[in-house]
Amino acid sequence: MKITRRIEFSSSHVCALAGRSEAENRALYGAAANPHGHGHNYVLEVTIAGQPDPVTGMIVDLKEVKEILNQEVVQPFDHRHLNHEVPPFDRIVPTTENIALEIWRRLAPHFSGAKGRLDLVKLYETEDLYVEYAGEPA
Amino acid sequence: MKITRRIEFSSSHVCALAGRSEAENRALYGAAANPHGHGHNYVLEVTIAGQPDPVTGMIVDLKEVKEILNQEVVQPFDHRHLNHEVPPFDRIVPTTENIALEIWRRLAPHFSGAKGRLDLVKLYETEDLYVEYAGEPA
Amino acid sequence: MKITRRIEFSSSHVCALAGRSEAENRALYGAAANPHGHGHNYVLEVTIAGQPDPVTGMIVDLKEVKEILNQEVVQPFDHRHLNHEVPPFDRIVPTTENIALEIWRRLAPHFSGAKGRLDLVKLYETEDLYVEYAGEPA
Amino acid sequence: MKITRRIEFSSSHVCALAGRSEAENRALYGAAANPHGHGHNYVLEVTIAGQPDPVTGMIVDLKEVKEILNQEVVQPFDHRHLNHEVPPFDRIVPTTENIALEIWRRLAPHFSGAKGRLDLVKLYETEDLYVEYAGEPA
Amino acid sequence: MKITRRIEFSSSHVCALAGRSEAENRALYGAAANPHGHGHNYVLEVTIAGQPDPVTGMIVDLKEVKEILNQEVVQPFDHRHLNHEVPPFDRIVPTTENIALEIWRRLAPHFSGAKGRLDLVKLYETEDLYVEYAGEPA
Amino acid sequence: MKITRRIEFSSSHVCALAGRSEAENRALYGAAANPHGHGHNYVLEVTIAGQPDPVTGMIVDLKEVKEILNQEVVQPFDHRHLNHEVPPFDRIVPTTENIALEIWRRLAPHFSGAKGRLDLVKLYETEDLYVEYAGEPA
Repeated sequence: MKITRRIEFSSSHVCALAGRSEAENRALYGAAANPHGHGHNYVLEVTIAGQPDPVTGMIVDLKEVKEILNQEVVQPFDHRHLNHEVPPFDRIVPTTENIALEIWRRLAPHFSGAKGRLDLVKLYETEDLYVEYAGEPA
Repeated sequence: MKITRRIEFSSSHVCALAGRSEAENRALYGAAANPHGHGHNYVLEVTIAGQPDPVTGMIVDLKEVKEILNQEVVQPFDHRHLNHEVPPFDRIVPTTENIALEIWRRLAPHFSGAKGRLDLVKLYETEDLYVEYAGEPA
Repeated sequence: MKITRRIEFSSSHVCALAGRSEAENRALYGAAANPHGHGHNYVLEVTIAGQPDPVTGMIVDLKEVKEILNQEVVQPFDHRHLNHEVPPFDRIVPTTENIALEIWRRLAPHFSGAKGRLDLVKLYETEDLYVEYAGEPA
Repeated sequence: MKITRRIEFSSSHVCALAGRSEAENRALYGAAANPHGHGHNYVLEVTIAGQPDPVTGMIVDLKEVKEILNQEVVQPFDHRHLNHEVPPFDRIVPTTENIALEIWRRLAPHFSGAKGRLDLVKLYETEDLYVEYAGEPA
Repeated sequence: MKITRRIEFSSSHVCALAGRSEAENRALYGAAANPHGHGHNYVLEVTIAGQPDPVTGMIVDLKEVKEILNQEVVQPFDHRHLNHEVPPFDRIVPTTENIALEIWRRLAPHFSGAKGRLDLVKLYETEDLYVEYAGEPA
Repeated sequence: MKITRRIEFSSSHVCALAGRSEAENRALYGAAANPHGHGHNYVLEVTIAGQPDPVTGMIVDLKEVKEILNQEVVQPFDHRHLNHEVPPFDRIVPTTENIALEIWRRLAPHFSGAKGRLDLVKLYETEDLYVEYAGEPA
């Protein structure tokens, strides 16, 4: 059984490789390469898999999930410029794919035991584009 | 191939274990433990798996699916207080997890043969919290 | 100019007049008359009218609006049974109309001066039904 | 890892088998059998699976995906009557199931190599009904 | 005070003037001029203005509103080709504007007295395009 | 009668007054004062008022509206950092209020005659916060 909590955060980013010209980066990333940055209201769905406790009927304590998401994602990402303020995006291009991978890396250690196992990170950049990562080997 | 029908129902519930104090139940369930109850507009997605009939191009007769969902879920759950009016929630805490399990139990016998097989029950308590159950052994 | 903040709260209610039979109340309110109660995820949009400050570019301080909505609506209404826990709904039927009127009465005193004027309360009971109240004489 | 792009198209269709009476077709398809046709704003989600490129951080070039979806789905389907203008729906009933299968057949050849592999076609006829097809043998 | 009920219907239409060439109609209406027709899931919001009854707390009997909307809009429009099956669209182009006007004409006589007054018809052709009509002189 | 077109654009912004400390700006604007900027998927609804043409049944030519919105809003705002790339936000704080005012100023000259009159600009910063401007004197 799986339970999913949805949260939102608003961030800026620039998609551009260091050492390439703006024209080369626009060929790769389109308008997202604009060096001044642009931003999104990201929507994140975090799915935890596990068995409901036979007494409480709950897979996880949702109050704890909320705190973990707040500490690992909302506090560091919300109202931030990802390239300038959120490592490793000073070195790695903050595509939706890479942001989802980084969120997985931050959350997975919290959901590995009695609290249920991290099953899926689904990250919407807009309502028309989203990425899913289930922790498979890269 | 899979086909999914979405329905809604509005219910009240209380999340609290019998024999525990209100303080103990609030520690477990937060505000959902309020003994007077509170309510939600639940959104339910029911997914049926099967092959489309080569002549009609349909996996299931959606008019029959609608009737089954109406009879097994909408009629008994909608505009009801789950703890007081919908067994087994007089004995089992109506967490989102347990409600999804109960809906699976009610629907699975209807979708096991020519009509397609019940594949997934996805139940939203709010737009920020949902549970998925695929009938795996509990 | 107008600015609107949206919030949500989850409550139970019963729509029934004291001193009438359950059959009479069902004739009036339909399934909402069920005496055990049922519930909704209410969505509330609160609109404030005013001029943006020429220096700050803001009509109101949204941090204050959030606190007022939390204190006057979320804290008293969320995860509550309106008939049993939120006056005046012990005496007045909590139809969507009456809930919107009560929210207006609670909010209007906070938005009458420099902070902008309360312009509209829009309350969704479900995504298919909402009420708007602009403070016109009743 | 998976990435999904959502698009919309507006089409008419009739669900009816040739050589059957209108009554027989209404028994099968309900109101969708109306011979004059009716229409929908279809919403399509196309999911591509693959590994993000270690340098660019992208699974696919989304500018190319957009062009493929435009050429294979939007141009031929949008503002069209499927039975009269979009083969094979002159011969095959355009149920949501069959439309999803046809979209898979059109898209799969484009996503089989370096651009990522077509993983899922999810087609909403309305917000309450959708079909998913993952290319399994039919 | 105002109360709004939302419903949906799925229809086909063609936007073209009789006696003009297809090229002329495409210049006017774009892809909507396709003579084979195309379709939409229309979303309709109907707003009724009035005072809540001091005893029942209701502006209108929503069960009656539902019946009126079903009889005047859903039954005649849903799963229909507007140009071929719903007068006056055999003579008048079914633009969103004209459909909204026709819905107003059908509903206004039902909401003129004790049941509240028809205040607004809001008709979405897609989630990105809608028309509002408040009965002002044309 | 009114017709509304919805579009989206993704931008970065910083809400801070020149010549004030970061602490002062945070007291005014909260997290939006972060000097590195953050971003949103803005949703803009533009409403045009007018009479439908008695022959075509259209208030405005929606193909022209689309071009005007593209030229005046999407091209200059989308994938941009408002403070650095979109005057007057180099001098004026890009609060949602001020962005809506600027969009009104850009669009109003295009909708003043036969094409219908600009009636309302509604700008969502997130789905929980929006501003409406109807051109009233400031």
